[in-house]
Amino acid sequence: MPLITARSNGVFTISATPFAEDGSLDLDSTDRLTDFYVKEDASGLTILGMMGEASKLTQPEARTFVERVIGRVPDLPVVVGVSASGLVAISELTKAAMDAGAAGVMVAPPPSLTTNETIEAYYTNVVDAIGTDVPLVLQDFPLSTTVPISTATLGRIFEAHPSIVMLKHEDWPGLEKISALRKAEAEGRRRTAILCGNGGMFLPEEMARGADGAMTGFCFPRMMADVCKLMTAGEIEHARDIFDAYLPLVRYEQQPGVGLAVRKYVFHARGVIASSKIRAPGAPLAPAAVAEVETLIKRQEARLADLCG
Amino acid sequence: MPLITARSNGVFTISATPFAEDGSLDLDSTDRLTDFYVKEDASGLTILGMMGEASKLTQPEARTFVERVIGRVPDLPVVVGVSASGLVAISELTKAAMDAGAAGVMVAPPPSLTTNETIEAYYTNVVDAIGTDVPLVLQDFPLSTTVPISTATLGRIFEAHPSIVMLKHEDWPGLEKISALRKAEAEGRRRTAILCGNGGMFLPEEMARGADGAMTGFCFPRMMADVCKLMTAGEIEHARDIFDAYLPLVRYEQQPGVGLAVRKYVFHARGVIASSKIRAPGAPLAPAAVAEVETLIKRQEARLADLCG
Amino acid sequence: MPLITARSNGVFTISATPFAEDGSLDLDSTDRLTDFYVKEDASGLTILGMMGEASKLTQPEARTFVERVIGRVPDLPVVVGVSASGLVAISELTKAAMDAGAAGVMVAPPPSLTTNETIEAYYTNVVDAIGTDVPLVLQDFPLSTTVPISTATLGRIFEAHPSIVMLKHEDWPGLEKISALRKAEAEGRRRTAILCGNGGMFLPEEMARGADGAMTGFCFPRMMADVCKLMTAGEIEHARDIFDAYLPLVRYEQQPGVGLAVRKYVFHARGVIASSKIRAPGAPLAPAAVAEVETLIKRQEARLADLCG
Amino acid sequence: MPLITARSNGVFTISATPFAEDGSLDLDSTDRLTDFYVKEDASGLTILGMMGEASKLTQPEARTFVERVIGRVPDLPVVVGVSASGLVAISELTKAAMDAGAAGVMVAPPPSLTTNETIEAYYTNVVDAIGTDVPLVLQDFPLSTTVPISTATLGRIFEAHPSIVMLKHEDWPGLEKISALRKAEAEGRRRTAILCGNGGMFLPEEMARGADGAMTGFCFPRMMADVCKLMTAGEIEHARDIFDAYLPLVRYEQQPGVGLAVRKYVFHARGVIASSKIRAPGAPLAPAAVAEVETLIKRQEARLADLCG
Repeated sequence: MPLITARSNGVFTISATPFAEDGSLDLDSTDRLTDFYVKEDASGLTILGMMGEASKLTQPEARTFVERVIGRVPDLPVVVGVSASGLVAISELTKAAMDAGAAGVMVAPPPSLTTNETIEAYYTNVVDAIGTDVPLVLQDFPLSTTVPISTATLGRIFEAHPSIVMLKHEDWPGLEKISALRKAEAEGRRRTAILCGNGGMFLPEEMARGADGAMTGFCFPRMMADVCKLMTAGEIEHARDIFDAYLPLVRYEQQPGVGLAVRKYVFHARGVIASSKIRAPGAPLAPAAVAEVETLIKRQEARLADLCG
Repeated sequence: MPLITARSNGVFTISATPFAEDGSLDLDSTDRLTDFYVKEDASGLTILGMMGEASKLTQPEARTFVERVIGRVPDLPVVVGVSASGLVAISELTKAAMDAGAAGVMVAPPPSLTTNETIEAYYTNVVDAIGTDVPLVLQDFPLSTTVPISTATLGRIFEAHPSIVMLKHEDWPGLEKISALRKAEAEGRRRTAILCGNGGMFLPEEMARGADGAMTGFCFPRMMADVCKLMTAGEIEHARDIFDAYLPLVRYEQQPGVGLAVRKYVFHARGVIASSKIRAPGAPLAPAAVAEVETLIKRQEARLADLCG
Repeated sequence: MPLITARSNGVFTISATPFAEDGSLDLDSTDRLTDFYVKEDASGLTILGMMGEASKLTQPEARTFVERVIGRVPDLPVVVGVSASGLVAISELTKAAMDAGAAGVMVAPPPSLTTNETIEAYYTNVVDAIGTDVPLVLQDFPLSTTVPISTATLGRIFEAHPSIVMLKHEDWPGLEKISALRKAEAEGRRRTAILCGNGGMFLPEEMARGADGAMTGFCFPRMMADVCKLMTAGEIEHARDIFDAYLPLVRYEQQPGVGLAVRKYVFHARGVIASSKIRAPGAPLAPAAVAEVETLIKRQEARLADLCG
Repeated sequence: MPLITARSNGVFTISATPFAEDGSLDLDSTDRLTDFYVKEDASGLTILGMMGEASKLTQPEARTFVERVIGRVPDLPVVVGVSASGLVAISELTKAAMDAGAAGVMVAPPPSLTTNETIEAYYTNVVDAIGTDVPLVLQDFPLSTTVPISTATLGRIFEAHPSIVMLKHEDWPGLEKISALRKAEAEGRRRTAILCGNGGMFLPEEMARGADGAMTGFCFPRMMADVCKLMTAGEIEHARDIFDAYLPLVRYEQQPGVGLAVRKYVFHARGVIASSKIRAPGAPLAPAAVAEVETLIKRQEARLADLCG
């Protein structure tokens, strides 16, 4: 039961939540998907994130899913998204997740927050509710949450709450933010880990700016693992060559609301999950999009063959 | 176990959810508050609305509260707010509520809806999920939901789903919308009940435009019951005299986020509920506001004494 | 050519912009409307605010209107709304207004601002653009601008820019904000004037909290002047009696988008302006609303007669 | 003085607006930039778009810029962005632009529009204001305008207003929208041209779905011209090879607010414009970003050399 720390790094793949055709949780597919992520070299997992359709699960379903995944990979750090509209629900799911062996929990700001003071107060409330001993990931994703958090506000929150050990960074644009956070640390603020989202769209630049890895759901997670390792090892051109080979698909996946459908399609097509079902109001990938994705994968494979050639 | 229909009318008071000082559900206060609403001449109750802090309850708490209230007043129609981020949660709470004897359920549109087509599709999904036999109230409150619904879109939704028997109207401005809905009914569309929110701020005008009553949480519910009855009876000047006497407090309560604190303060001050506790991030009424509310109530009583004089 | 200062007070009526039936500026009606405001005991005027349809005027029209109004009342302080999407336009209109004899200018934050830092930077840009010698009013109206500004952020902006001498306060809820700003001044921060908007809906409470007056467009401005004077003189019950008599109409006017139509209707009905024309996409008051307004005015007059009786 | 039509196609490059270091319009750089676009194989130009900092220009500056550009390339179709907060301003700039020889004008919906009915009414107002003889481009860019327009709503607007001959498509995700619009045309609705924005991020897929070209500002416009031509000629793999070579930079440029800084940096670095000045609150490219852009361009050139090799 490892815990995340401010030194965690690598790729924490955001996991999809597999459903059967009738919309119920599919736990066998969950096992296979978890195994797939491990095989693709994930350093950790993040479950019940936005891409995990967390908001469409009931509270008992969420607990069932958490226990299943962590039970499958007890030695891998698993971060559990616990964002909810009420602090009691956040607190209860956190307790269940940590009891099950989670490595930490992740909370995004609710859309009602409108000023830096209300954002700061919110994370104080969250830390009070879940306890200062639970490693916490702050998810900074304004395109989805509608809550922009400035670098200075993030800094004050990090200062106030040592249990926030990690930033899930997906502000957009967000490169200067990584540099500014690292600069503040160089000037004395305690360190937080920074794992980046946005589907991996800026991964080489993010790593060069000081990120520690990725926390996102691109359907070929090994690309992210390779790029992170190569960037860390200073093999920058090689990292970029690999990244560029996957970029056309990364870009396609990054369309809001489309990414999950692409990922479930790909996982289903490869036999990882039994159904590409998305709970309403989500929809499966349209036929024209399926053809586009297949084209992109085919070109991607050819390009990778060239690179290795 | 009465059900709401398109002919329901009167005042369905929006109920607060009482908490103990430690933040847990206070079921004894719930009984007293329910009794208070009945004594104040409520035609029905609406529980787990936004003012009922529904989004801060866990799913088991919500069910406990529903059962307690309905058990207390089995002959009064009780509408249960079941809005949630996922359809499965909506469906489960609806089933629990209807099994407990609810008169119907209420659903507001989630903030992700952005076009008339997505709004219409959402209510189709909801009706599919809960079943066409459950009387449904559509809550139209754009200031809070961020989802404006045009009169024509409402009309298409009502045509498509006969189980939507009631509109909780709190668009602002919203008077022309009532007139337009009633006009469409005069021209042949089936009827829906219209109960108005917004704290009662426009109750005389809303009744004159064709509303059937109020569904809101003003802390002197009898005022609303009296105004509705007098307007219906054609005693318009009398209705307005009473309304005007309460208007300074109605206006004060109508400040976003302040209303609930005023109501819990007043209910607590009168001994109806044991604590004015609001779950975080809500806050109790500030001292200066307490003084303002007391001043308004004192003047209100004097004015009412004059009227009855 | 008086200038506003941090000690300005009283009622700065927000002026409508009169148009002829063909939509062109009506300068004769402008003269009569200006005279009307003076007769109603305005301490100053604010022109080209949101209610003045400023965003629908071309830049030359704005300058023509400014010169006409100030030319009519050269001894009355006239604040000119200069909000625009670009700083060059703000700067040019400010120069034209101050050259014409304006008492100061007013700027609201543009909707693109999302954090306290960007809001603070914006007012630095504005002050740089217009010069530190121009008295500036900061308009804090989140319901319309979509930019919430916390009390602490306001404080930092006031500290940084002594030329910001006045706050147009229309945050909602906003009473605690007035108290907090006055408290900071009691603890040493320099003073700013606070004139309140929101149609006057909370004028007695605002004055009691420390506001200096009103800056809003209620169509019976004398009510606001009387309430401000009586509150300042400590005749609080008398002030509230007058306020309550007008409150049903104040409330009606405060419906977003409806207020201007009510005001132009009333001014036209009384012969102050030649047409109640509003530039598209605005619309004149609907017939049912006209009847509602007339009813409210009739009851208002009766109530005032009672009070004076 | 060519006019755009429903059969227009190719690349209408969105032009930047060059400023001198002191922030004034730089008309000599404007000439060079216009020449550059022509040399890069632009089929047309679009000026005073969002990327053209249109909202930061005064009305006289806008007219000066329009006349300069059109005067430089009198035979090239030039679309002029005329979005403004008031219809009178839209109408005046449209008249000035068409008098100067523009090929048409472009209007985006203002953020105040909230329902399909208000969006439809807005375009009726616009067409009434500018006249039915002016070719109009509807800009559909919800990420920036905050106004989502459904495919069905677009269809009704196109049916109602034959003068709307072109859609600037930058909904995101937006591929299904192109397919749906073309399907409606196949079933009998009149044709509109569809030129795509979003920095060219989805250009191959957009062309395959039926788009007629691009209207966006990527700083190597010839890429877009080549991809459009190759896609139209059925040389799809070749088109994708070229596209993929530029994609890392396209992606980088597509960061909101960063794109313009990248473009002005690149144009300045190549000697096309005299300064990379952006009017406040815009900022020039940060040093770390400059290095990132240079790296991307270097790799892009190597990749293109490989392709041609």
